[in-house]
Amino acid sequence: MSDNKKLSTESYKGVRDFYPEDMAIQNQIFSIWRDTVQKYGYQEYGASILEPADLYRAKSGEEIVNEQTYTFTDRGEREVTLRPEMTPTVARMVAARRRELTFPLRWYSIPNLFRYENPQRGRLREHWQLNVDIFGVTSLQAEIECIQMAHEITKSYGPTETDFEIRINSRKLMDYVSRDVFSLSDEQAHKISKLIDRKNKLPADAFEASAQEILADKTPIFITLLNSKNFEEFVSNLPQTKEEHAGIREVKEVIAGLESLGITNARFDQTLMRGFDYYTGIVFETFDKNPANRRAVLGGGRYDDLLSLFGGDKIPAVGFGAGDVTARDLMETYNRIVSATAVSPADLSLAIIDEKQTGYANDLAQDLRNQGVRVAVDYSGKKISDQIKAADKRGIPYIIIIGETEATSGQLTLKHLATGDEQKVTQDQIAEIVSK
Amino acid sequence: MSDNKKLSTESYKGVRDFYPEDMAIQNQIFSIWRDTVQKYGYQEYGASILEPADLYRAKSGEEIVNEQTYTFTDRGEREVTLRPEMTPTVARMVAARRRELTFPLRWYSIPNLFRYENPQRGRLREHWQLNVDIFGVTSLQAEIECIQMAHEITKSYGPTETDFEIRINSRKLMDYVSRDVFSLSDEQAHKISKLIDRKNKLPADAFEASAQEILADKTPIFITLLNSKNFEEFVSNLPQTKEEHAGIREVKEVIAGLESLGITNARFDQTLMRGFDYYTGIVFETFDKNPANRRAVLGGGRYDDLLSLFGGDKIPAVGFGAGDVTARDLMETYNRIVSATAVSPADLSLAIIDEKQTGYANDLAQDLRNQGVRVAVDYSGKKISDQIKAADKRGIPYIIIIGETEATSGQLTLKHLATGDEQKVTQDQIAEIVSK
Repeated sequence: MSDNKKLSTESYKGVRDFYPEDMAIQNQIFSIWRDTVQKYGYQEYGASILEPADLYRAKSGEEIVNEQTYTFTDRGEREVTLRPEMTPTVARMVAARRRELTFPLRWYSIPNLFRYENPQRGRLREHWQLNVDIFGVTSLQAEIECIQMAHEITKSYGPTETDFEIRINSRKLMDYVSRDVFSLSDEQAHKISKLIDRKNKLPADAFEASAQEILADKTPIFITLLNSKNFEEFVSNLPQTKEEHAGIREVKEVIAGLESLGITNARFDQTLMRGFDYYTGIVFETFDKNPANRRAVLGGGRYDDLLSLFGGDKIPAVGFGAGDVTARDLMETYNRIVSATAVSPADLSLAIIDEKQTGYANDLAQDLRNQGVRVAVDYSGKKISDQIKAADKRGIPYIIIIGETEATSGQLTLKHLATGDEQKVTQDQIAEIVSK
Repeated sequence: MSDNKKLSTESYKGVRDFYPEDMAIQNQIFSIWRDTVQKYGYQEYGASILEPADLYRAKSGEEIVNEQTYTFTDRGEREVTLRPEMTPTVARMVAARRRELTFPLRWYSIPNLFRYENPQRGRLREHWQLNVDIFGVTSLQAEIECIQMAHEITKSYGPTETDFEIRINSRKLMDYVSRDVFSLSDEQAHKISKLIDRKNKLPADAFEASAQEILADKTPIFITLLNSKNFEEFVSNLPQTKEEHAGIREVKEVIAGLESLGITNARFDQTLMRGFDYYTGIVFETFDKNPANRRAVLGGGRYDDLLSLFGGDKIPAVGFGAGDVTARDLMETYNRIVSATAVSPADLSLAIIDEKQTGYANDLAQDLRNQGVRVAVDYSGKKISDQIKAADKRGIPYIIIIGETEATSGQLTLKHLATGDEQKVTQDQIAEIVSK
């Protein structure tokens, strides 16, 4: 404390402080997530934000580890990364105990994740994300269950069935198109998938020029496929084969499975890529079509090969992630944010006229807390009118003013701040009234 | 995925993975914390683990920032630290909005904190901690309320009133001893306080030798003061003055205030220092005296000057912290950990005889989830006996086996796995039975 220079109150660039009103919104979002996935039997797990950097190198390639993550070397010469996503961590944990765990596993977590965004872009460097994964199910029921939860969570943010849609694609189908229809090499196929991922960010002619470089004279068929208006048209634009391709069958089955559960806003989208390289089958996202938003809400897919990186047999896996920033944006658009009074810090405030009544107030508070009432005692020593204002400002619904008469007689007056209504009460009547 | 080298499933050194059974314990600890402080009207806030390194330099000195924290330089040449404690963050947040906030503030948070421990010591590098703070109260009621909560939380871990005690000291009193009784300089006073902090870790003769270096011929009085058996003896060993010193009065008032609330296990402890330099008044900790433990459980104190570092007037503050590792250790000692079945991931499992009944099972599951039942459908395709075993192993209490008959008739058999009891039910009877 020897330095007289004033310390800055600013947080680190690109991260957020959560004052109680913001934390209440975070908790509302987390509750939506927890309540939904727990109904499906998912169990919470957790891990540290610190992971060995190698965990991300294996599947993401050097580029991501070096440029988009926080990676540093500790004094034990270990390279450590602040986790940019949760899937590698959960894959590591499941692989580590593959012999003891009872599959299928249904797991979820709400980690904070870190991305090293360039400061000038003004994007967030830390955000929270629901991660939901089911391990050990090869059937498409895993995809259907995940999409069902994704659908339910999206609806909880506010949009109606017609405001949003579920977009579905198949990595198997897109691989078939790249390799069998266009005879592309692995590298070319990867390039094409990255190009499709950027389709909506590029002007049509720039997109076509980039496609031309990879596909040459097959570009028109590619453009025709990408522009197909629906699944039937897309399939009819593919070369016809004797047997229906597995990718086609899977998309059909997932959409039909959702329909039988009453979910009718799912559709095939051949341009849906979902960034991560580890997906192996169905990929999906929910998309808000509302002109005020027009954005992906949450998404995921099947990644059957990822756990093999840790050795041992394959463990099939399907999962999805949902971010807090998108959730909050949507809930604001659709007016789903809780009001300040709904997150009141206490049920009752005790105002004290004179210091001498503090002991009585403390005893009363303790008795009520033991009955489950949340009680805040005002120790400010301010005048009563200020103590009442402070309680009201905090959204505390009830107040009792304690003076000598009250402390001596135990005859109390309970005031409801919103209406101004007052009622005489004894100590044993309070809990029932304020807990209503 | 081009690299064939097997990836390690080990977590980063010194941090923990939380598998569902461990996460359930964490959540149990977090619930004790939340439930207690919410009864006193405390509101949750949050922040990023990333903070500007300068935040810790100002008060902790270079040593802590460089040697005991994770501090690195980002690409914008900013020095960033993974927070080692929460108090500087909450002080920063309160100072930033001092004009808009309504004092007194009652705030809590459950952050994860990072310490760069040497790997060979095998100590944890990340842990979670409840942080509770009250801002804007000058009276000792702030200390009394914090100690009341600390007492309640400690009891929730299992120890009885006689198993543990609350140790109380006063920085004001110890400063008076250093400066007025022993006429020490700031630097010498700081050395003495660090020495007292290490008293129980040093042999008596080594301790005395170190004291001798600072206090010379005053060492015997110092040793007498430290060895005083209780508050009265300690006070009587001080030079008598006309007026009672504020530090003495405060210790008396806090202990009396607690006693009037029925908390009788608080006592003065002149050797209690509580590491942080920022404390300015009462400091306290709860201490488990049980021979199986003998350890500090949680602690805190008043820090009225810290917020001035950010400029502006003083904002009085009292707070305490409680760690997850100590909580878990105590709860294990006192058998307070929840059993695995109490953290069952679902109320009901649906076993499926043939894939054809999946649609019926999904519909049933969805209907029950809408009634608030947590339902896990078994998509493993394994034989029924294995599906029953899996549900039992997971601690799911009920199961319904769905075959063609059930799917056609809607006549279901609900089996309670622990007792083996079976009962015929219709779809609309299930929610009530399994929710009991």
